[in-house]
Order: sequence, then structure tokens, then C-alpha cells
Amino acid sequence: MPSKTPDGEQRGWIVPIGGAEDKEADPKVLKRFVDLCGGKDARIVVIPTASKLIETGTQYERLFPELGAREATVLDFDTRRDAQEQNRLDRIEDATGVFFTGGNQLRLSTLLGGTPVAKLVRSLNARGVTVGGTSAGASILSEHMIAFGREGSSPTAGSVRLAPGLGLTNRFVIDQHFRQRDRLGRLVAALAYNPFAIGIGLDEDTAAFIGPDDTLEVEGSGSVTIVDASELTFSSMDRAGEDDPVCLLGLRVHILVAGATFNLHTRQAAAGRLAITKT
Amino acid sequence: MPSKTPDGEQRGWIVPIGGAEDKEADPKVLKRFVDLCGGKDARIVVIPTASKLIETGTQYERLFPELGAREATVLDFDTRRDAQEQNRLDRIEDATGVFFTGGNQLRLSTLLGGTPVAKLVRSLNARGVTVGGTSAGASILSEHMIAFGREGSSPTAGSVRLAPGLGLTNRFVIDQHFRQRDRLGRLVAALAYNPFAIGIGLDEDTAAFIGPDDTLEVEGSGSVTIVDASELTFSSMDRAGEDDPVCLLGLRVHILVAGATFNLHTRQAAAGRLAITKT
Repeated sequence: MPSKTPDGEQRGWIVPIGGAEDKEADPKVLKRFVDLCGGKDARIVVIPTASKLIETGTQYERLFPELGAREATVLDFDTRRDAQEQNRLDRIEDATGVFFTGGNQLRLSTLLGGTPVAKLVRSLNARGVTVGGTSAGASILSEHMIAFGREGSSPTAGSVRLAPGLGLTNRFVIDQHFRQRDRLGRLVAALAYNPFAIGIGLDEDTAAFIGPDDTLEVEGSGSVTIVDASELTFSSMDRAGEDDPVCLLGLRVHILVAGATFNLHTRQAAAGRLAITKT
Repeated sequence: MPSKTPDGEQRGWIVPIGGAEDKEADPKVLKRFVDLCGGKDARIVVIPTASKLIETGTQYERLFPELGAREATVLDFDTRRDAQEQNRLDRIEDATGVFFTGGNQLRLSTLLGGTPVAKLVRSLNARGVTVGGTSAGASILSEHMIAFGREGSSPTAGSVRLAPGLGLTNRFVIDQHFRQRDRLGRLVAALAYNPFAIGIGLDEDTAAFIGPDDTLEVEGSGSVTIVDASELTFSSMDRAGEDDPVCLLGLRVHILVAGATFNLHTRQAAAGRLAITKT
């Protein structure tokens, strides 16, 4: 469950990124993340635990200050015991932003799930700290996380496996590398289990910036596919066998590009600044 | 434009199939096609012109009688002049069913478009003759045909090229090998040009049986994805560059499996026999 935001305070931004975000030519997604962490006052902790590659974390340590942050430091966890160490917790407590790199989201949930680190990140976000992540680091942010699944446009009953995520919110389920790895079917299957959540499919180099009011705005070069299953009139998920295709009638789908918005409460999509920009 | 159905008669069935339909273990899609052509009275003309392989047509010539047809004969066209020959036209005129094989839909439209054969097939369908096709042979059936395009879940402005098809109907745009080749993006892009049509994405071994009343019912082992863009609230197609992602708000999507139905007039999806079958 998400931590409760104290009275008079605002929840921090939640920033899932679809992976492979531009780090050189036009790093607008990461720049905006840095700005939301406080810009020149930003102290960002980079958690590279999803990845086994040493350079995964260090590249962000170098990049975030280039984009205007005061400092960025890598904080890794090799064991669940690491996630209980007080001096590591103190470093997170001091941050104005937390960033999870890509890798394997099950490594993140296995090492951090249920630890004081997971609890602290939830609590910081509830108190206004920006939390973001890319690829696996995006998937982990919500309560219900797509652990793995099959590719393909159409859903089959067994095409997706869910696992508990970090739980900053339970309003949505994230999938990433969306266009590049053809994941509509598994995102739709994830919603078919329980249509209350919103499905958010993030293309590479594209992010959903989710504000304190639960309105998301898209930034980046690709699109964000929103799947709203709340008006479903029929689902065969309860009776479909593992490999059977699933019948789902009445899905609402929005394809958002940079500048477009979606409100996770009212489930309304809007063109945002696109409606007035002529190019 | 579709031919006008004479008073007192019914248009024939239109049967687009997503390709790779089962021909041995459980050929229920092709069996139902044969039944709609008249079963033991069926005389089916197989047009293999989309393909350059000699066996493409002959396998259906052998298969349709095994599935109960009285006869099935291959009729190929190598040139546009072939498509004007009276004895070939007479053979089509005599058929109770016409079937287009897979291959390349541009070969079909290039060789048959605007010829007496195309006109005759439209006219026969308007007078009650069943017309079907698989893969490229499915794409060709409608007025607006996806000629080629890029794969991927999210649409970009340049991801699809349309060409005029055979024109049995202008109510829908077909795409095939849907799940297998990840074609949601290009189908959605095709609708973004002009949202009046319904997008029909056919998985392999799966068909939409479209009756005289323009209600389609799904048969086969996969699913049929229906994309209805008629309630779009915003599209950026008019201003998006060739490689830009397209913003489309308010798509309605239904994923149908065998037994489910969709009415192309009212745009209502229904669970059909699924609603009462417990398995």
C-alpha cells in the first residue's frame, strides 16, 4: 500500500521511463526528472540494483550533475541485509530524488521488497520526494508489477506474471520498451485479472511524469499507451486456459505523445499543449 | 465502391482470414467457409494470384473437397489481360464461392484492380456469393487496403501505406498475422487518416465471418482485435511528421475470440455464445 501523504503536504512526482532514454543528443526526459528533484539543489540517489553491470549506475552519477543536479551518488544493494543498514538508509533519507536503473525488476523486488529501504522510498515519495526509474526501474514503482510475460499484440490468459512492486501507487500497472518489444497483449492481460488499475505502456525514450494530483504528462520521443479497462462489458479471463486468447470487450485506449495528459482519477485524456501547438 | 445488392437479395458473406489457418488437425475456419459456399453444392474458385508459388492454389483445390465442397478449381492470372478473358470470367460467374490465397496483396491489386474480374467478384458478392481470403487475400477484400507498413504496437504517422483494394465493403480496414507480426500500430495509423472505418486485426488461424447484416462472428484459435476510432476526441495525424508518434485519444478496442460478435453498423461488441458457455 502507498504511504499516506501527511496533511498539508503533497506527494512527490512518480516518473516511470520506458527504457533507452536519450542520454546525449536530447536528454529531455532525464533533464525534466532532475528539475523535479530540485534542479541545482537536487541530491539524487541512484539505485542500480536491478542491473549486474557496474557501469549502469555510474553513468547516471555522471549524467545527473551534467543536467544540473547538485549531486548524484550510486547506492547499491547486494543482499537484503544491505537494505537494513542505517548509513545507507540515512543517505536515502537525505535525498531530494531517487532513481532506479534498468535491469531485471525481479532482482529489485527480491532484494528490496519488504525491507526498510522499500518502506523509506514509499514514505519519502509520500512526503514530496521525486521517485523515478527506467525500464525495470519503471516497472517496480507500482503496487502490481509485471514480472515477466510473452510478447504479442493480443492477450492470452497465461501471457503475463504479476508480482508485488514497490507500491508507490496502486492506480496503474506499468510496462516498458512498449512499442519496441510489442507488449500490448501482456499489459491488457495484466488488467484483465482486475480491471481497476490503469495500464501504462511506455515506449523507449518516453516517460510519464505523474504529478501530485495523479495527472500524468508525457515527455520524450515516443508514445505512451493508456489502457483503461474500467468500462469492460465482458471478459473471459476467468475461464480461459493458459494458452487461450482472452476475450475483452469495451477497452478504452489512448495513445499519448509528448505534451498530452491523462488524469488517473477521472480517467480523462487530454491533448494538453498539443491542442494549441501547430508545427 | 461496393456493388449494390439487388432488391430482395442478400449480400454474400465476406470472410477475411488472418493467415496460416489450420489445414489438418482442426480446419474449422476453412470448413465453415466451405459450408457458407454451399457445402456439398459448393463450387469454389481459388485465385492464387497473390502468390508466386505453384502449390499455393493447388493445396486449396485438394482441401476444399475434403471439407465437403463439390468442387474447387484454381484460376490464376499472370497479366491484366488474363483478367479480361471471357472463359475465365464465365468460370467465376458459375462459382458459389471465391477464395483468394495469401502472398502479396499489391500483386493482387496491381493485376486485378479495375479489371472485369474485380468488378465481377464485387457483383457476385452483392448477389449472395461468399468471398473469402487469407493473409494478403484477406487484406484485398475491403475498399481501403493496408499495402505495407512497419511493425510495432504504437502508431507513427508514416507507419502504413494504403492502397485501393477489391472494395467488397468500405466499412473496415483489415490487417492480418496480427499478433504474430505486431501490427496494432499500423492498423491504428490506417484509421487515423480517416476514422470512419473499423479496424479489424486478425490473428493467424482466425477469421471474421461477416454476414449479410454486417455482423461479424469470430472463428478460429486466436483473437480478432477490433479498433473503433469513431469516438476519437483528438488526433495529431494532420501535423505529425513521417517518423513522429501519433497522438490518438479515445479509441475503443475490443478483443474478440471464437464465438464473439461485432456489428459493423451499431459498433457494438457482444460475447455471443461465450456468454453462455462455461468451459
